Amino acid sequence: MGGDFGPPILVQAACLALSRHPHLNVILVGDKKRIEEQICTLDKLISTRMKIVEASEQVEMDEKPSQALRQKSQSSMAVALNLVATEQAQAVVSSGNTGALMAFSRKILKMIPGISRPAIISSVPTEQNKSRLIDLGANVDCSPEQLFQFAQMGSALVKAISEKDIEPTVALLNIGSESIKGNDQTKHTHELLSRSTDLNYLGFIEGNEVYTGNVDIIVCDGFVGNVLIKASEGVARMVIHRLQTEFKRSWWTRVLATVVISVLKSFRKRVNPDQYNGASFVGLQGVVIKSHGGANVSATVAAIEEAIREASNNIPRKIQQQLLKQLEQ
Amino acid sequence: MGGDFGPPILVQAACLALSRHPHLNVILVGDKKRIEEQICTLDKLISTRMKIVEASEQVEMDEKPSQALRQKSQSSMAVALNLVATEQAQAVVSSGNTGALMAFSRKILKMIPGISRPAIISSVPTEQNKSRLIDLGANVDCSPEQLFQFAQMGSALVKAISEKDIEPTVALLNIGSESIKGNDQTKHTHELLSRSTDLNYLGFIEGNEVYTGNVDIIVCDGFVGNVLIKASEGVARMVIHRLQTEFKRSWWTRVLATVVISVLKSFRKRVNPDQYNGASFVGLQGVVIKSHGGANVSATVAAIEEAIREASNNIPRKIQQQLLKQLEQ
Repeated sequence: MGGDFGPPILVQAACLALSRHPHLNVILVGDKKRIEEQICTLDKLISTRMKIVEASEQVEMDEKPSQALRQKSQSSMAVALNLVATEQAQAVVSSGNTGALMAFSRKILKMIPGISRPAIISSVPTEQNKSRLIDLGANVDCSPEQLFQFAQMGSALVKAISEKDIEPTVALLNIGSESIKGNDQTKHTHELLSRSTDLNYLGFIEGNEVYTGNVDIIVCDGFVGNVLIKASEGVARMVIHRLQTEFKRSWWTRVLATVVISVLKSFRKRVNPDQYNGASFVGLQGVVIKSHGGANVSATVAAIEEAIREASNNIPRKIQQQLLKQLEQ
Repeated sequence: MGGDFGPPILVQAACLALSRHPHLNVILVGDKKRIEEQICTLDKLISTRMKIVEASEQVEMDEKPSQALRQKSQSSMAVALNLVATEQAQAVVSSGNTGALMAFSRKILKMIPGISRPAIISSVPTEQNKSRLIDLGANVDCSPEQLFQFAQMGSALVKAISEKDIEPTVALLNIGSESIKGNDQTKHTHELLSRSTDLNYLGFIEGNEVYTGNVDIIVCDGFVGNVLIKASEGVARMVIHRLQTEFKRSWWTRVLATVVISVLKSFRKRVNPDQYNGASFVGLQGVVIKSHGGANVSATVAAIEEAIREASNNIPRKIQQQLLKQLEQ
């Protein structure tokens, strides 16, 4: 029911994901009537793998998380999370209110023992490969111990998802590469990470290196991560917009644009933020994927596919095992 | 003497700035021999407006600021700052060690009374107009009172530089637009800014809005600002790089690239970070402009031009007057 568009986009995305993934089953949770309106003609093979579960309420996008937690126990996100808690589903994908989704997730799925706060992790496009940034906004006043746990959780996630047996590389976001640089939080976290024998810690990384680096996990405070990811999206959109403006300048450049359209399309596809949609909540005893509120169909499918990856790899359990191993050392 | 290239780039930039600005005088400070090597043939009109002042030392790019402050009183940046302190010059432009430049600036030029810490401010390219971001890394653990002062200083700077009589708009960088969002620092600063009757405060701004917004001044902690500006640069470079890669894909697209070269050149010129080079240190009793260490000739000229603008407008004095006015209210 969530996001800027609700059922129209979400149902379409579910159908597309079902047709692409023959072993996927989807449960659509929310207002049955509004969901059914969106399901027009469905392939028989697909329809047997889709079902609807009614939820009488929904959390509004601007609702205060604490209030939703008290008053909306029958909301679509709470009902969906309960399906995971009772093992009727393996993952939740939501494009609803992030704070409320986080609050309900903690309450219904519970935290992994030993983890103080969940974090949000997502892929960022880089020139070399895909790095993941943790935290993207779940925690805005982090202690060094929390940042250290983010590194552990991120590392465990990448290790579990990777097909090869790798030791994921970890870097800490800072404003310089020398150890005298940074705020107190960063310096203290750097000490904790440097002392760890279980993490493949490479040291500091600066803002510009996020998009060139070869690092698997970039750790930062949720405030900084949120600003970074949103500003990056803003820059990418501005640059693409300027390129379009440049081609619209005169009739002659407009003709040129039609000639290079295939190149421009391929370019836009490669820098398209849609394919990086789907941020994971880690630290919980279950898979919860947050899709962007403004996500279109293909971006929503990307979020569903992240859920499939994490559920098939049983990420929450692997993170828990990884943390236990760390405690024993 | 500073930056990644030293005299070769800096002397060329000085000559170009002199030819463009007939009322400009330039004093080159540093190793006289190395500077003279770079001055080959100079137009007579230009050479009368250029002079060299010897400095026997220079601060290394990776030198600790506190150490430089103790040991390098004869460094090119210290000597140049003394020329401003003794009114032999109106502004300093340096591409040297940022921390050392800040430390020497505070010691030699002194702070504006009432300002606790200087801040770094610079323009960011936006779709609508040019916004300025303050602080970009001078202060990494800011109190709400400091962030409030950044808003005052930024606002005074824009007011003084603008040709029209405007009340510059101020926004506070946050991870959401509702007042419940953000960390403690942001919430407290928001209260201070909301209470101020002297500032044209608009409220919160999110990361993506930095590049679309119509705001004159965006206030943030130096850690966040530094990450934001560097990440933005990283994204812009990655996007441009991907566009180039797209055109290099096959012989056919390479031919297309030659056809659209004028459009691509114009595009690159418009998104070129060079034109935004030149960050100002504000809160000091003198104009100090920090040019990027990796700046080329045209970027260095942009930094010199920022110095011209601020010196001709007597920005430090105007900021001081503005702050006094505020205190009286």
